Amino acid sequence: MNDTDIYRNQRMGGMIGKGRRTALIIVDFVNGFIDPEVFGGGNTRDAAEATVPVLEAFRARNLPVVFTRIVYADDGSDAGIWCEKVPRLRELTDSSPASHVIDMLKPRAGETVIRKTQASAFFDTNLGSLLRGLNVDAVAVAGATTSGCVRATVVDAISANFRPTVITDCVGDRALGPHEANLFDMRQKYANLVTSGELDALLA
Amino acid sequence: MNDTDIYRNQRMGGMIGKGRRTALIIVDFVNGFIDPEVFGGGNTRDAAEATVPVLEAFRARNLPVVFTRIVYADDGSDAGIWCEKVPRLRELTDSSPASHVIDMLKPRAGETVIRKTQASAFFDTNLGSLLRGLNVDAVAVAGATTSGCVRATVVDAISANFRPTVITDCVGDRALGPHEANLFDMRQKYANLVTSGELDALLA
Amino acid sequence: MNDTDIYRNQRMGGMIGKGRRTALIIVDFVNGFIDPEVFGGGNTRDAAEATVPVLEAFRARNLPVVFTRIVYADDGSDAGIWCEKVPRLRELTDSSPASHVIDMLKPRAGETVIRKTQASAFFDTNLGSLLRGLNVDAVAVAGATTSGCVRATVVDAISANFRPTVITDCVGDRALGPHEANLFDMRQKYANLVTSGELDALLA
Amino acid sequence: MNDTDIYRNQRMGGMIGKGRRTALIIVDFVNGFIDPEVFGGGNTRDAAEATVPVLEAFRARNLPVVFTRIVYADDGSDAGIWCEKVPRLRELTDSSPASHVIDMLKPRAGETVIRKTQASAFFDTNLGSLLRGLNVDAVAVAGATTSGCVRATVVDAISANFRPTVITDCVGDRALGPHEANLFDMRQKYANLVTSGELDALLA
Repeated sequence: MNDTDIYRNQRMGGMIGKGRRTALIIVDFVNGFIDPEVFGGGNTRDAAEATVPVLEAFRARNLPVVFTRIVYADDGSDAGIWCEKVPRLRELTDSSPASHVIDMLKPRAGETVIRKTQASAFFDTNLGSLLRGLNVDAVAVAGATTSGCVRATVVDAISANFRPTVITDCVGDRALGPHEANLFDMRQKYANLVTSGELDALLA
Repeated sequence: MNDTDIYRNQRMGGMIGKGRRTALIIVDFVNGFIDPEVFGGGNTRDAAEATVPVLEAFRARNLPVVFTRIVYADDGSDAGIWCEKVPRLRELTDSSPASHVIDMLKPRAGETVIRKTQASAFFDTNLGSLLRGLNVDAVAVAGATTSGCVRATVVDAISANFRPTVITDCVGDRALGPHEANLFDMRQKYANLVTSGELDALLA
Repeated sequence: MNDTDIYRNQRMGGMIGKGRRTALIIVDFVNGFIDPEVFGGGNTRDAAEATVPVLEAFRARNLPVVFTRIVYADDGSDAGIWCEKVPRLRELTDSSPASHVIDMLKPRAGETVIRKTQASAFFDTNLGSLLRGLNVDAVAVAGATTSGCVRATVVDAISANFRPTVITDCVGDRALGPHEANLFDMRQKYANLVTSGELDALLA
Repeated sequence: MNDTDIYRNQRMGGMIGKGRRTALIIVDFVNGFIDPEVFGGGNTRDAAEATVPVLEAFRARNLPVVFTRIVYADDGSDAGIWCEKVPRLRELTDSSPASHVIDMLKPRAGETVIRKTQASAFFDTNLGSLLRGLNVDAVAVAGATTSGCVRATVVDAISANFRPTVITDCVGDRALGPHEANLFDMRQKYANLVTSGELDALLA
């Protein structure tokens, strides 16, 4: 029995019902997660480019858009254990270009940019409260990396009772094995997966 | 360049320093996650058996032990979106044997059993506060499934500034592909990985 | 200048706009918070009696109702620093009648009873996630004590972007000075205050 | 029976045991909470002045110091329900002097400044995780206002299993009635209360 069959036999991998109002969460599409010399590479640039029209679609419908960036204090005072495991995270200081959202997805006034220090966009941030204030019950997730901040954000989203959708061509990773493996896990257990071309159905 | 090299080039996959005091977190080793007819199968039974001597070692050293179980109200009133994605979770009611910790790892008086409704043992529970009260700064994680509640718990542990160690032969999954893929992710980004045979070094 | 004028001059004490859907949160109306020999006394019994018709009104409108109780493990393993400050909290074990919701407000099937170990009903619990899953954006709060678990719950409610209303005759305290002082604080900074007779306007 | 007797009869108002390592949390001593034309007045300036030697004492002992400020985005995108209740909070934007820590308590490199949008310094922030990373199990709290952000922070501190101490002459409020009432509540239920002159005993 292959892996997919095992999950099907346990009745996993089904679809979550559609929400009433969906926000777009763009996770860590910052310069440092595109650049292969920092934390990028693989298909992260392609994913960022595929997110441009998705962002435009959400804006055109006046649906909420939230960006995230990992940011540590210049003096490193809020760097924790994760920075021990992944030491170059410390480079993502407020003043470093590596921590800034990429130009092609530049946030507009009114679009919140969440500052975070951990993988999940919900962890120790006001993202959950903010989404509730916006009357949102579903999130569509783009960003990098699939196996890191995207996965952690999606797991927290469903845990907090938001309906998560992963836009498969809008999430990217430095290495394709983990990218695919995490898409598998999210499809089986935590989210609906759609391509950006299927977006209209999601938002209708 | 293979996946491991990509991570090494970005200086991931290193070791987290040792903590002062480690708690053992036994995640969802309940009947329903051993039984292949519910959510178990694969190497989950082997992992549970390998956890028996680890539990004894923590007890012998008087180190804290915490168990978790997924539990929903009998009337389903606290089932959320995750139960839409994984409908059989609703079977894990308080009165169902499927939600009870397996006999071979039976909790003793003084060992807290955390009730949870989501994947992470930290999410919407008092686990983080409890560990702080116990003066713990590191956690060793056993349980099921590697790609589910173990992974989610490990990510939240490091996010909350606990030093996480995954005991590789004490975590199991219904399917081995996701088991291995999630061990890879955790080793690269979120935890130290050791076998139960290497436990003494961890706790020394 | 009296205290109220000071707040008015800083533009506090105004009204929060009405929500779309309101849940009733009945905080710790358990036997031990009515009994003056445990944690009750003062106007807690009167407040509980005034809550009976409010509960019926929410049920008649099919609006969500959530109860809370403070519960510690029989072995005391999850008692923390709050139990050092208030040692008799440890008596509120699962099996003790003191921790059970009073008969006159007995929960029905489908009405969640949140187990908590701290003052706020939101702290380390799934209340926030549950309310989001119920499509709730406002909470009306009854319970005991005004200066304790009610106040803490109301502050967390507005912090999490729920619109809080305190039902003034349905909250009670062991001592009337703190009861009044905390109503003042909540009126100025955290909630709308209404009597149960004004409930219809709130829910219309 | 007076209020204090009622609490004593229920065995409240006792002392919490001393911690191993105490951090100083300076809550919202920003320009806008000193200025009576914004959110200050009363004894807030006196409290800030009394905090200067306390801050020096913590620095001299190399104990952790954390500051907080309320900050909203310039475009108001993260203002929530609390800003409906207290509309002038929206003035506390990143670029406004009103949101900046007062000069007499200027943070040094290595002292984290927590950005928050709600009353409690712990709510939707990484303060709890940060303190754990610093191996802290107790907090001494100074700041403004006693009935607002200080009270909310203290309640969350004990809820998260930190041992809280309120430095009574280092917390201030715009109006003295609520200041006193909240000191009463915290002394009875949530914290130890000491004057800055008693600090040595606390930290010994």
